Amino acid sequence: METKLLKIHESVRELRKLRSDKEKYLKLLESKLSKSYRIKDEKTKTMIRIQATILSAIREYLDSKGFVEILPPIIGPASDPGIRGARQAVIDFYGRPYKVMSSAILYKQMMATALKKIYFVSPNIRLEPLETIYTGRHLVEFFQVDIEWARATYFQVMSLAEGLLNHVIKRVTEEHQKTLEELFHRSLSIFPTPFKKYSYIEVLKILKDLGIEAKYGEEISWECEELISALHDRPFFIIDYPLGSRGFYDLEDPERPGILRDFDMLYPEGFGEAISGAEREYQYHRVAKRMLDSGEKLEEYSWYLNMLKEGIEPSAGFGIGVERLTRFICGLRAVWEARPYPKVAGLFSP
Amino acid sequence: METKLLKIHESVRELRKLRSDKEKYLKLLESKLSKSYRIKDEKTKTMIRIQATILSAIREYLDSKGFVEILPPIIGPASDPGIRGARQAVIDFYGRPYKVMSSAILYKQMMATALKKIYFVSPNIRLEPLETIYTGRHLVEFFQVDIEWARATYFQVMSLAEGLLNHVIKRVTEEHQKTLEELFHRSLSIFPTPFKKYSYIEVLKILKDLGIEAKYGEEISWECEELISALHDRPFFIIDYPLGSRGFYDLEDPERPGILRDFDMLYPEGFGEAISGAEREYQYHRVAKRMLDSGEKLEEYSWYLNMLKEGIEPSAGFGIGVERLTRFICGLRAVWEARPYPKVAGLFSP
Repeated sequence: METKLLKIHESVRELRKLRSDKEKYLKLLESKLSKSYRIKDEKTKTMIRIQATILSAIREYLDSKGFVEILPPIIGPASDPGIRGARQAVIDFYGRPYKVMSSAILYKQMMATALKKIYFVSPNIRLEPLETIYTGRHLVEFFQVDIEWARATYFQVMSLAEGLLNHVIKRVTEEHQKTLEELFHRSLSIFPTPFKKYSYIEVLKILKDLGIEAKYGEEISWECEELISALHDRPFFIIDYPLGSRGFYDLEDPERPGILRDFDMLYPEGFGEAISGAEREYQYHRVAKRMLDSGEKLEEYSWYLNMLKEGIEPSAGFGIGVERLTRFICGLRAVWEARPYPKVAGLFSP
Repeated sequence: METKLLKIHESVRELRKLRSDKEKYLKLLESKLSKSYRIKDEKTKTMIRIQATILSAIREYLDSKGFVEILPPIIGPASDPGIRGARQAVIDFYGRPYKVMSSAILYKQMMATALKKIYFVSPNIRLEPLETIYTGRHLVEFFQVDIEWARATYFQVMSLAEGLLNHVIKRVTEEHQKTLEELFHRSLSIFPTPFKKYSYIEVLKILKDLGIEAKYGEEISWECEELISALHDRPFFIIDYPLGSRGFYDLEDPERPGILRDFDMLYPEGFGEAISGAEREYQYHRVAKRMLDSGEKLEEYSWYLNMLKEGIEPSAGFGIGVERLTRFICGLRAVWEARPYPKVAGLFSP
């Protein structure tokens, strides 16, 4: 298999090598995390400056397209439950359990109804399972840029995502080309658009050709995403996931029952998932049914369901993880190199 | 007393009137909060757009002065304990209690050591006591712009705060003058600098002349802040709080033992506190002593104390609450009008 992965980035290759000795990798990570308060190396300092440029470029791009930045929710009675095996962090809010946002998707629908085109730079906590220590792609604490656009299609927001990524690359190379090359051995240029779109079914076929049986109806695992990502030298989309594989808020296509109008964007070179997005379910009776089907308790979502009963705008949107984007832009081994105080499942750090 | 408060803003007067009937006020607030998902009025929509301009102006100003925006911590083993009677929100982080940040001050010192001039747009949770429902100034969930500057004095960061506020007013009036006047009956202009500086002791004297005995050594209560604020038509500073009245991180003046090199900035017109800031304690033995004096458990701050042992830069900085700034800029009755999904002590809302 390894011989086929011609486009894998050197850092991803290094991560794979590192994690092949789990004990050694864990020791390295524990030692790094416990001392993360000590930022003396130029690489980390430069990463932070590049991350500031990335954020600035994202805001510049979205503002220019008429999106309004809104300060996101931090806690609330309900958060996104559709988070692949992670648990939510719970606090005691005057006697009631409130969640620290694992994703602000419910609030995005609220705000897109009010202002049409909106975004958050959203603080998220997901208590990931311990095995995510080794993926290079999971942080317990991270930020995502959360975008929502009333009455847009998922194809429109995919175009927006392409433009957004290219604008980030443009600004970062304008401002940091030299340090990127010198410190990170990374050179980037704008990617031709539109990016390639695979359907979920096509991806299952590609995996099958590689000898991997992925089960229809389930999310594609991060290992498979890393693999497919490593076969590409450009970002690409996977679209049309099947019902049951994603959260209750991804819209089921009225003309193709069982198929969701949603997508992931994947980075190339083995960096894996970049973005998750979709058109949204927005009608009360449909959402309530989807919630029940996925085992959610309706009473936990009372404000959200009340809002749907009163009526909201249909919308589409996506979330792009800032640390994963930074990892890709700088060509880092792992997301724990893209945050000054990384929190990784089960490991204690500042 | 009321006759003296000539500069009190109409909205603050309205809030005072509202809260004079506690039961009615509570009903109004409960009803507003439970339906906060329903944003149909132009005033709230415009407030959100103005808040976006405020944030954009803050970033523009700080970036132009060489400050680097860093994504803030969300949770951690320790957070700022110096939060006037509020409790911290605690989550279970793989068997250990982690705090949701009530203030990121410990992390600001870490990052100012690495990058010299930094800021966060920082998500904060403070489980405020129930009586704060009536102040118009307290939210359980809010954002502050958290600034830290290595080797600066508190006078330098006060100048920065003046410039920052005036730049926000400049941008907001350039972009929203007409709606500000039409929807909010608010007109603003740049304030002459430097802003007036009162010492803590001078403020106690002013209060005494108004017939109020405030005890030396304690923080000035929000009621007294509102009162003094209402005597002014321009922002002003209170400096040099006494040891014991603030957190362990405010630097005790080496040449004036018992006096801290710190400040608050207050808005005029009864809007009250805008900013808290200080030079920081940064030497291990001094911080450890201050922690013990204020009843903190050293073991909770192990990473922070380890960092101090290794040595960090002296620094000064401040935090400015975004919702309070928005309240002042728009002339709103309360901070719960400056957030689309306000969380107020003990009240349930989206």
